[in-house]
Amino acid sequence: MAVRVSVIGASGYGGAEAVRLLATHPEVRLAHVTAEAQKGRPIADLYPNLRGFVDLVTEPLDATAIGGDSDLVIVSLPSGKAMEIVPELLERGARVIDVAADFRLRDPSLYPAWYSFTHTAPRYLAEAVYGLPELHRAAIRPARLVANPGCYPAAALLALTPLVRAGVVRRTGIVIDAKSGVSGAGRGGAAGGHGFSEANEDVRAYAIPGHAHTAEIEQELSGQAGGAGAAGDVRVTFAPHLVPMTRGILVTAYAPLARRLTTPEALGLYREAYAAEPFVRVLPDGALPQTKATLGSNYCDVAVRVDARAEMAIAIAAIDNLGKGAAGQAVQNLNLMLGLPEAAGLRVPALYP
Amino acid sequence: MAVRVSVIGASGYGGAEAVRLLATHPEVRLAHVTAEAQKGRPIADLYPNLRGFVDLVTEPLDATAIGGDSDLVIVSLPSGKAMEIVPELLERGARVIDVAADFRLRDPSLYPAWYSFTHTAPRYLAEAVYGLPELHRAAIRPARLVANPGCYPAAALLALTPLVRAGVVRRTGIVIDAKSGVSGAGRGGAAGGHGFSEANEDVRAYAIPGHAHTAEIEQELSGQAGGAGAAGDVRVTFAPHLVPMTRGILVTAYAPLARRLTTPEALGLYREAYAAEPFVRVLPDGALPQTKATLGSNYCDVAVRVDARAEMAIAIAAIDNLGKGAAGQAVQNLNLMLGLPEAAGLRVPALYP
Amino acid sequence: MAVRVSVIGASGYGGAEAVRLLATHPEVRLAHVTAEAQKGRPIADLYPNLRGFVDLVTEPLDATAIGGDSDLVIVSLPSGKAMEIVPELLERGARVIDVAADFRLRDPSLYPAWYSFTHTAPRYLAEAVYGLPELHRAAIRPARLVANPGCYPAAALLALTPLVRAGVVRRTGIVIDAKSGVSGAGRGGAAGGHGFSEANEDVRAYAIPGHAHTAEIEQELSGQAGGAGAAGDVRVTFAPHLVPMTRGILVTAYAPLARRLTTPEALGLYREAYAAEPFVRVLPDGALPQTKATLGSNYCDVAVRVDARAEMAIAIAAIDNLGKGAAGQAVQNLNLMLGLPEAAGLRVPALYP
Amino acid sequence: MAVRVSVIGASGYGGAEAVRLLATHPEVRLAHVTAEAQKGRPIADLYPNLRGFVDLVTEPLDATAIGGDSDLVIVSLPSGKAMEIVPELLERGARVIDVAADFRLRDPSLYPAWYSFTHTAPRYLAEAVYGLPELHRAAIRPARLVANPGCYPAAALLALTPLVRAGVVRRTGIVIDAKSGVSGAGRGGAAGGHGFSEANEDVRAYAIPGHAHTAEIEQELSGQAGGAGAAGDVRVTFAPHLVPMTRGILVTAYAPLARRLTTPEALGLYREAYAAEPFVRVLPDGALPQTKATLGSNYCDVAVRVDARAEMAIAIAAIDNLGKGAAGQAVQNLNLMLGLPEAAGLRVPALYP
Repeated sequence: MAVRVSVIGASGYGGAEAVRLLATHPEVRLAHVTAEAQKGRPIADLYPNLRGFVDLVTEPLDATAIGGDSDLVIVSLPSGKAMEIVPELLERGARVIDVAADFRLRDPSLYPAWYSFTHTAPRYLAEAVYGLPELHRAAIRPARLVANPGCYPAAALLALTPLVRAGVVRRTGIVIDAKSGVSGAGRGGAAGGHGFSEANEDVRAYAIPGHAHTAEIEQELSGQAGGAGAAGDVRVTFAPHLVPMTRGILVTAYAPLARRLTTPEALGLYREAYAAEPFVRVLPDGALPQTKATLGSNYCDVAVRVDARAEMAIAIAAIDNLGKGAAGQAVQNLNLMLGLPEAAGLRVPALYP
Repeated sequence: MAVRVSVIGASGYGGAEAVRLLATHPEVRLAHVTAEAQKGRPIADLYPNLRGFVDLVTEPLDATAIGGDSDLVIVSLPSGKAMEIVPELLERGARVIDVAADFRLRDPSLYPAWYSFTHTAPRYLAEAVYGLPELHRAAIRPARLVANPGCYPAAALLALTPLVRAGVVRRTGIVIDAKSGVSGAGRGGAAGGHGFSEANEDVRAYAIPGHAHTAEIEQELSGQAGGAGAAGDVRVTFAPHLVPMTRGILVTAYAPLARRLTTPEALGLYREAYAAEPFVRVLPDGALPQTKATLGSNYCDVAVRVDARAEMAIAIAAIDNLGKGAAGQAVQNLNLMLGLPEAAGLRVPALYP
Repeated sequence: MAVRVSVIGASGYGGAEAVRLLATHPEVRLAHVTAEAQKGRPIADLYPNLRGFVDLVTEPLDATAIGGDSDLVIVSLPSGKAMEIVPELLERGARVIDVAADFRLRDPSLYPAWYSFTHTAPRYLAEAVYGLPELHRAAIRPARLVANPGCYPAAALLALTPLVRAGVVRRTGIVIDAKSGVSGAGRGGAAGGHGFSEANEDVRAYAIPGHAHTAEIEQELSGQAGGAGAAGDVRVTFAPHLVPMTRGILVTAYAPLARRLTTPEALGLYREAYAAEPFVRVLPDGALPQTKATLGSNYCDVAVRVDARAEMAIAIAAIDNLGKGAAGQAVQNLNLMLGLPEAAGLRVPALYP
Repeated sequence: MAVRVSVIGASGYGGAEAVRLLATHPEVRLAHVTAEAQKGRPIADLYPNLRGFVDLVTEPLDATAIGGDSDLVIVSLPSGKAMEIVPELLERGARVIDVAADFRLRDPSLYPAWYSFTHTAPRYLAEAVYGLPELHRAAIRPARLVANPGCYPAAALLALTPLVRAGVVRRTGIVIDAKSGVSGAGRGGAAGGHGFSEANEDVRAYAIPGHAHTAEIEQELSGQAGGAGAAGDVRVTFAPHLVPMTRGILVTAYAPLARRLTTPEALGLYREAYAAEPFVRVLPDGALPQTKATLGSNYCDVAVRVDARAEMAIAIAAIDNLGKGAAGQAVQNLNLMLGLPEAAGLRVPALYP
């Protein structure tokens, strides 16, 4: 019997991508989709790709009703909104995957500093599992509440984890330069310089320094940094950029070497770390990641190079920000939580070209 | 037991898209992929989206061997090349879908005029079935040789057929203005002004008048024009344009009215014509087709409007040129020919955004 | 001594492009720039390309003060707003170029039908000169009030005028298929589906049939249609499309032949019509217009072909919608009105690539 | 009397942009343009934006004739070709600006290592002046031979020089992450993955580590590093990326602090360094560079931020790779060499949007 899944915030790009993936998921039945600002409309009017696939009409957000009528709820609201409804969803018996940042940081004091809000449901932070299966698969399976990673952190962590875990790079001086497609700004982000005319034929940096995803990256990398690893142990400079494409994130991470390392040795660390991963592809020698090879998919392509002259490791990861960076990742977590095959509904190659 | 399918010309965009679709097709096993210019390379090196999906290495084109070892062969070569190998493939027992133009025109004398070559296998033209299921489904099922429609004709015919069939528009004076993404020019088309720097931030017309697809459109529309319909009966002006996107064709067709007609009446003709079609969506009133709603899919979205002031019907169709315009269409034909569910491997919503 | 010119509505794309052109115009001094929604900000904060060129701060719209302190005012407001202030500007002694539609249609009854508003200053419609120099140069020079053409009409009229004027095409059944970059929707147009993520990798039709520019095109073509030409005499079907680029309009116009015509004969009509025009380039045989060849410039490239099989003339024109389609055109009109060299400040080749 | 200037390699993007700028330069007369592969064609056929501006026909490359008939020659050939003709051009009395890499590196032994060729005219390396006016203005004025900077180095050096010169950052561990539009790959670069279909909706890294521009950046930064500064003194990791736009480079450079530094202090260094520069704009507090603000212009926009948590300075620079990164820069150098106003022909604001 199909699992009943609801998507809260289905009019945003992340939520709509989750609906798209669930619409053809073999084990899932979509129960409810909500869209506060556009309720009462067929979701296929908002997302015309869904015509012929999903007949649901967007509902208002009633956490009590939806929580009681769903096995699992994917919450895709702006950061700061999920914490207001997740307790009720859990209370009603639903398991929850939050696609925003509300349950990613374990230390509640980080929210005022990085997100400018005070957490209203801090007791759930200890319970929440950071939903990157490559780091926390075992904990995700039984979790009631999974915090889906941010789009930038998903790519940055998959790029850097093998180096940090192996202790071959320093814990400070790490630079993460990220290039994102414009859909990362959300459907509402169309104003404010993200209109086509100004985002097209343009590259710009933004939120430098101090983007909120820095905290999440440091928390998780510190956790991977081994015995001595504590929160704040790893320090990174994170710089996001907007590039004129719709989907995709390319992260280029630069980590000063802690000891001598060759490119083949580095590559060996990645092959080992990701040998059994269904959605991480370590590229063969000679190839570098490109976002197009992941477009519309849940895959992450990674490569690593050592710049011996400069004693620097360079790790590169490409994802679809709405795939492995959001909705694809959420479905992978859903599969783990529900005991389904991890790749159910996700074994689709990217579009290329 | 899975059907053995081979793709000849797998290094081009159309062939590679066929490989992508067949890689996850539930009833197909990929047997051989060929790429004359790049033989001996893993197909996943040429198309990095296929990493983890297809292990095949590109082979040289040996029609005898491939024909003998395949149930069905998709031939995706430049026009004029398929006719050299299709007879041998058929001889060896394989059924064939030709994605190029070699078997689309029933009258061999049209090839020198429109394609600048003399047909070397004219006796197969009578046997070949024009592979647009919405027009020729019954004939496609048992066919040995199916001629997949051109990308522009696929969209143009789905746009105009209900009007022409109903006899509500004139048979002359029809204008077909088509806007295509750049992948229609093929992977080899990157030179000659199709490099990114010049195709980006540019729209241009080309091949006006006289694009070869004109012949194919007129042949099929004439066939739909009813009792009196003969080849050449319908005359169209066809004008293709290049727009700065990778995939997608939007056709806007203008047909002078033969009698009074309202938009709702016109819409009724479309709803009736396509009521049972799995891959044609007649848009609800108020919506107009956009290529993005078909991106990466086999869907065709259509709409129709009547400009009463000017006594003109305007029909619009959107497709992915590599989907319904090439490889998706080929897989739909393959399903019909093999007696599989028509939508097998193709029930995937477009990417949006 | 420099002429004092003000730009009302300088925060929009059209107004800002006028400021850009006037910033380096040899005979002009920018007096005032207004931006109701963002007043009190350096214009260079809104348009960073102007840093180092324009120090002006946006002012509120005070028609009395600006009219009294300017020799000429370029009004670049949404349609329906200019008619509220243009009388006062003229009253104060300024000459006016209106970039919107408020003074383009000579018949006031057309405004409710095409623009959904009733004209509040109809007595100025008779005085206003339609500002397409290729059609009305002599009348523009002494005019107090010039109505700058719409972006689509500018291209459509330059494409069709030689054919219509010569009487070689019919006056009905003309189809104008236009493809526009997204900046045509304005800076405010970033919402509503014109955000990057949805406009990118997409082509769509809109406002079919019934776009307001239809009226303007028919008025002017009727005027060119010769002795018998009266308003409404020429009937066109006009269909605009949005393509994923920032600037540029390509118009492909299809006109049924009224008598036998060859491509060389048609070309002769264009060469003759535009022989002395500083900003219209009739392309040599073999070349077709592309918007990129006009990007950032005031040029219009045109070509014509005859489709003898279908007895159809095809005329194509490319412009930059913010250049010849708006601000460049306005500066050309300004030069004429002020007795300056017609190309002053406008002799700049397009960017290519 | 106008100065006679020739452009060798005018069919490439850099050469063609030089022709575009010189076509309206008030003090220059274009003498010869060459294009080996497409000689004998009007340059306006190759670059349709030049129609109505340049009547010249491309000639074969005859260094003796061109050198003797030109006051100054801009050489825009692939690296390794200029060294074969520059001696003859100088011999014939012409002054030369080489847009390629042949005379940028002072140490001839670096050419085999970074460019895979042995220099055939090493004695000119000592004479050549590195043509970045912000670093070497005084030496450029009288120079016979100027080596125009590479596109990436131009942006990287303008981003980093104030920090390196002031000694506030370390000389090792510097990371330069660069994002370039596709025109940087040249017109010939349209093949090999730079076709529109694959470069569009894609971001990728390439040539990591080891891009040849690394050597040039290190040479010049070492020169700025003060008393102790010697070649090789400064070590950088340079990583170029391709983004889906035609023009533009954004460099984000990360330099570990050598001592405590605040953002305002850093900004002060930039304001001081570039106070008198006509083409470098230090952005006001709160603004970050975007390539669009430089599109089609010779401007470079820079900003600097200090990430105090990570003890890292972040400097960002935006240019048009064909402007300040190639042809615009060349014209600025030409103006200096010829004693013209430095901004002659270059005082044009960028296109925006």
